[in-house]
Amino acid sequence: MKRYTQKEIDNFIENLDFSKIEGGIVPIIAQDYKTNEILMLAFANEEAVRQSLKTGIACYYSRSRQKLWKKGEESGHIQEIQQVFVDCYKDTVLFKVKQKVAACHTGYYSCFHREYVNGEFVTRGNRIFDPDKVYKK
Amino acid sequence: MKRYTQKEIDNFIENLDFSKIEGGIVPIIAQDYKTNEILMLAFANEEAVRQSLKTGIACYYSRSRQKLWKKGEESGHIQEIQQVFVDCYKDTVLFKVKQKVAACHTGYYSCFHREYVNGEFVTRGNRIFDPDKVYKK
Repeated sequence: MKRYTQKEIDNFIENLDFSKIEGGIVPIIAQDYKTNEILMLAFANEEAVRQSLKTGIACYYSRSRQKLWKKGEESGHIQEIQQVFVDCYKDTVLFKVKQKVAACHTGYYSCFHREYVNGEFVTRGNRIFDPDKVYKK
Repeated sequence: MKRYTQKEIDNFIENLDFSKIEGGIVPIIAQDYKTNEILMLAFANEEAVRQSLKTGIACYYSRSRQKLWKKGEESGHIQEIQQVFVDCYKDTVLFKVKQKVAACHTGYYSCFHREYVNGEFVTRGNRIFDPDKVYKK
């Protein structure tokens, strides 16, 4: 798990460009640190980025609920951050993570488990957990 | 190169959720179809998605220039789409692509070529081309 000091976090935040998307958020891609499989894309405001780098566990910002979203808080399916990358414009972040159980709330390892083939969305991979058993109603 | 029919494109567009980001755009992640290395994240409006699926070559929407951005139009560094995925909310797209030369305008294969380590942005990988020789002033 990769944690950063307060000084390192301040410097990271200063360098990030939060201005491109309304509300001051940046996209973050979570990628499996071993296989490079893409797990999900979410957004983070400054507070969520700070939280992620401080704890070493991915934290995002939920646009629908308009609050911090500690990924895995309910399910336990946390993402332990191994490496942090930025893109050339420093307006997008990449977390290479160790994913506990699965990333997708539907039970699949990756949120990108549907491929568009011959006009249909075809499911790839297997359901790892049953959402009804993991998430309270 | 993966191309889609008009009917398939219409269906794809109908299923995508463009409402989450101001301006009616969706994030698209471009990933190397062989190594799974993430190349870049860009945005696309409906027209850019249609163009991508019709031609099989990734086309985005430039927020700064406010127009279609045919990736590689000037440099020749196009992305041939091999597979198209959507995430669980159908508000984010993943293109698995065959990247010509390099994805980043700074000369690196991936836009995510800087890792944040010990308070510094450390460059990973090598510069593949010289931007001064590829892009006109």
